[in-house]
Amino acid sequence: MSMRTDLAIESEEFANKNNFSAVKKQFRRTENTKITKIDIDSDDVSRKIGKPCGKYITVEMPEFSTDSEILDDRLSSLKEEIISLLPEGKGTVLVVGIGNEEITPDAIGPLCIKSIFSTRHIDSKLAAEAGFERLNPVCALATGVLGQTGMETGEIIKSIAEHLKPKAVIVVDALACASLKRLGRTVQLTDTGITPGSGVGNSRAEISKRTLGIPVIAIGVPTVVDAETIVKNLTGKSEIKSSDEENMIVTPRDVDVLVRRAARLIALSVNSALQPEIEPELLLSVV
Amino acid sequence: MSMRTDLAIESEEFANKNNFSAVKKQFRRTENTKITKIDIDSDDVSRKIGKPCGKYITVEMPEFSTDSEILDDRLSSLKEEIISLLPEGKGTVLVVGIGNEEITPDAIGPLCIKSIFSTRHIDSKLAAEAGFERLNPVCALATGVLGQTGMETGEIIKSIAEHLKPKAVIVVDALACASLKRLGRTVQLTDTGITPGSGVGNSRAEISKRTLGIPVIAIGVPTVVDAETIVKNLTGKSEIKSSDEENMIVTPRDVDVLVRRAARLIALSVNSALQPEIEPELLLSVV
Amino acid sequence: MSMRTDLAIESEEFANKNNFSAVKKQFRRTENTKITKIDIDSDDVSRKIGKPCGKYITVEMPEFSTDSEILDDRLSSLKEEIISLLPEGKGTVLVVGIGNEEITPDAIGPLCIKSIFSTRHIDSKLAAEAGFERLNPVCALATGVLGQTGMETGEIIKSIAEHLKPKAVIVVDALACASLKRLGRTVQLTDTGITPGSGVGNSRAEISKRTLGIPVIAIGVPTVVDAETIVKNLTGKSEIKSSDEENMIVTPRDVDVLVRRAARLIALSVNSALQPEIEPELLLSVV
Amino acid sequence: MSMRTDLAIESEEFANKNNFSAVKKQFRRTENTKITKIDIDSDDVSRKIGKPCGKYITVEMPEFSTDSEILDDRLSSLKEEIISLLPEGKGTVLVVGIGNEEITPDAIGPLCIKSIFSTRHIDSKLAAEAGFERLNPVCALATGVLGQTGMETGEIIKSIAEHLKPKAVIVVDALACASLKRLGRTVQLTDTGITPGSGVGNSRAEISKRTLGIPVIAIGVPTVVDAETIVKNLTGKSEIKSSDEENMIVTPRDVDVLVRRAARLIALSVNSALQPEIEPELLLSVV
Repeated sequence: MSMRTDLAIESEEFANKNNFSAVKKQFRRTENTKITKIDIDSDDVSRKIGKPCGKYITVEMPEFSTDSEILDDRLSSLKEEIISLLPEGKGTVLVVGIGNEEITPDAIGPLCIKSIFSTRHIDSKLAAEAGFERLNPVCALATGVLGQTGMETGEIIKSIAEHLKPKAVIVVDALACASLKRLGRTVQLTDTGITPGSGVGNSRAEISKRTLGIPVIAIGVPTVVDAETIVKNLTGKSEIKSSDEENMIVTPRDVDVLVRRAARLIALSVNSALQPEIEPELLLSVV
Repeated sequence: MSMRTDLAIESEEFANKNNFSAVKKQFRRTENTKITKIDIDSDDVSRKIGKPCGKYITVEMPEFSTDSEILDDRLSSLKEEIISLLPEGKGTVLVVGIGNEEITPDAIGPLCIKSIFSTRHIDSKLAAEAGFERLNPVCALATGVLGQTGMETGEIIKSIAEHLKPKAVIVVDALACASLKRLGRTVQLTDTGITPGSGVGNSRAEISKRTLGIPVIAIGVPTVVDAETIVKNLTGKSEIKSSDEENMIVTPRDVDVLVRRAARLIALSVNSALQPEIEPELLLSVV
Repeated sequence: MSMRTDLAIESEEFANKNNFSAVKKQFRRTENTKITKIDIDSDDVSRKIGKPCGKYITVEMPEFSTDSEILDDRLSSLKEEIISLLPEGKGTVLVVGIGNEEITPDAIGPLCIKSIFSTRHIDSKLAAEAGFERLNPVCALATGVLGQTGMETGEIIKSIAEHLKPKAVIVVDALACASLKRLGRTVQLTDTGITPGSGVGNSRAEISKRTLGIPVIAIGVPTVVDAETIVKNLTGKSEIKSSDEENMIVTPRDVDVLVRRAARLIALSVNSALQPEIEPELLLSVV
Repeated sequence: MSMRTDLAIESEEFANKNNFSAVKKQFRRTENTKITKIDIDSDDVSRKIGKPCGKYITVEMPEFSTDSEILDDRLSSLKEEIISLLPEGKGTVLVVGIGNEEITPDAIGPLCIKSIFSTRHIDSKLAAEAGFERLNPVCALATGVLGQTGMETGEIIKSIAEHLKPKAVIVVDALACASLKRLGRTVQLTDTGITPGSGVGNSRAEISKRTLGIPVIAIGVPTVVDAETIVKNLTGKSEIKSSDEENMIVTPRDVDVLVRRAARLIALSVNSALQPEIEPELLLSVV
């Protein structure tokens, strides 16, 4: 399979076209969203789909860039699905933004982190005075990129997690997908974690329950399609001779707007999921 | 002709494929650059090529993003070609950056303006003290975009030019081209001016000698290819049914780096061309 | 008088201390604001106060940095006072942001412009579809600074105004004041225009009805006190020997927050004053 | 002692005025710098000076904002002094930028980190191809601020250090000083580490050999004087009644420029000290 995508829903579609249809799949619709749940529950399915075992939730919605309003059912759908992946019980949650803030289509992670409502350091008395009865402890971190820090994203998260001992880690990242029609309007949530620069077989980089010892929820938004993927899709060829496409990406014309909007929507969804007793309206001032 | 490109060199190639070859064309090579000059000198040629009459100089070079060094023959080639398009004699030159700073592939114009060496306001005595014997008067302006200002770029330039009475206007802008292999490594210089959002038949928007009454030199760098153009090129179809591609662009993966580098190279080239008696090394601290 | 301040209210206080009390003055209070109107209506008063003849409205309010909520009586006070200074009748209004975006205490003007609702270019049919029955024409411009552009702010505004023929110009700028207690919580509105880098006797720089031929409303927010002023106030000396203070300013610790908040509040006030028939809530999405 | 300063050289001057003169002190001058070394070597001296035991090196130089050239003896002085504080032997060095990037006078740490030459992840073969014979391993990290992350700076550094096991940590931070004449032209280097928000008796926050178990070198640049300190200095009063000054700071008018310049100079000094075999010219492209 030569198609490059970070979305399980696309890998599954591709497998389907090749007559593999053993994947468990569920749909749900709300006013503005279409939610697809895929369960990869055996090594065989995992190998055939090309994704690790686990739950994959895809939330499709209108384009991020057409509407700055975020207090509707897109928020409540995302909130609900994040809660469905979070482990029960008390404990700190560490939210991590992955990616390079200086490269627009890769900036969703770090931008999102700026709007995460960190609470672990807030004195409960002060919180009560500010109108927050009870705050669940949250930390937030943008890890930067290997070339800037000299450290793998996974190393940084592991170091911090060993100290914080959170009940879960949420990582937010930009993704690549295979189909233009999913750019700028899709969020994938999964309990399988993430492998930055994935597909390279770099096990150090994996950020997952297996490597950290605690649940890792990955929230990703596809912002690019590889030009190579487009060319292969259009021509039907599995190899492309020209190298021009190699370092080219396809993005929406207004990728700057959609990246800001998506980062804000995800931040508010995460904040709402982590403080389910607080009205989203109250959390708006943070994002 | 359905191909969208702002580069005359591509329009000419396309016409060539269709057996139209009346265009005057010259080549020159330096160590790092390949320079092509196209002269569109009759209405007939203009109509067939689809570009206004005038001189078009295309400077092709290694990718902007691979090298931060800019004091080599790329600089001297650009400097020389800018000088070749500038009218002789004394007088102020107004440099204008067009485009939207917040949208990366469109940000070359405004970014470039930040590094233009404005001198019109500098007292000649102060200049001499700073080691500049004689400075030609230069002004610089980023016009913003219609949606921000409520004014057409052309209106703003015309207003300022009527007051300043410059001997020439240089406009710097990001372009679209048709071929991936020209992205991030090409500069087009022309004496035909520019029509932002061109092809729309919006004559108010034209910025040229015809509308301003003074020479207008346009310097442009292609940063995007329309996804539609790619699809048409690959499939050979002149119409595409899906609308997915409509608002999609193809850019190099590292468009942020190349935009910064190109803006800096063009600024230094313009600064050098406008102050030909000053060593480029001395001008480096400005860019 | 050696005190440096851009606020007429402080000049008047200072004159008062020196037993000059001929200035016409009115007060008004709302829940969150205290409004003082000073009328300098004779050359004699103007000379003694050290400010041009005209109306000066000072709106004092809680610190900008303590509250991100802006839909209360601070907004309605500012809106009302802006309307009181605007000439009646139809016509375009040009809003201009003065100052250097890269220097925080000087960035209020350009930041504010980013949130001005420019409408002159919006087709009335499109506007109606977006729910705006009737839009008054507005243009917005950040002029940059002399060192960047090579042009005086006044030159740029005059050029644009000659083309646009607006019924009024609104300039937004950061100010210096003399008293720490006014920093970050005061807005001055005046119909006397502005002289950037004032006090220098540079008549080219003046932006006023006298130089432009149309009403100029200046809206300013004090963000700094000169260190020299503080020292003189504290020591009572009119000369200071050390030159250490010369290039020092006093600002609130959180000047970055207050500058963003003030720019947003002023933008919404201007937008509301220029589109008085539209609910401020509807205009919020722009700022 | 009521004076607030992070500079040992000022604390010592203050103690001197109060007839305490037991501090070991050395001077050295180069063309552009004046270097003062203070050794606080007993608990008695530490208590009287109000600074922890250790070495304090103050490098005074021309104002950062007057000159963008950095390859002179300011660089070599700083490089030499950083080396004098670094432990000998091989091993990774972790460079940490402390402070809030969004608040200009506090942004030196995070800005500096952007120009640190991280090398730990660079393959030695690739390095050799790029002309770097041998690279010492370096990591770089901006920790953000408590309100953003929910974690103390010290916690983050400790977590990372436990994983990286570096031979030393270098922390870069903005400081407060007591005298205007030191703003924007002074660098303090010390082997005593740092206590962000110091003076608050918050031992969790201390970042030092005592808390991390490895040498911690702190490099700081004073960018602000508390307005309260100025007032006390000028009036001679130890208490000030008005609360206006409480949240006010004094900074140079051009603090934005000096912060960028200082961050760049320190980054190049640190890069040169950590890669002493590489010519500073070669390291310039990184900063």
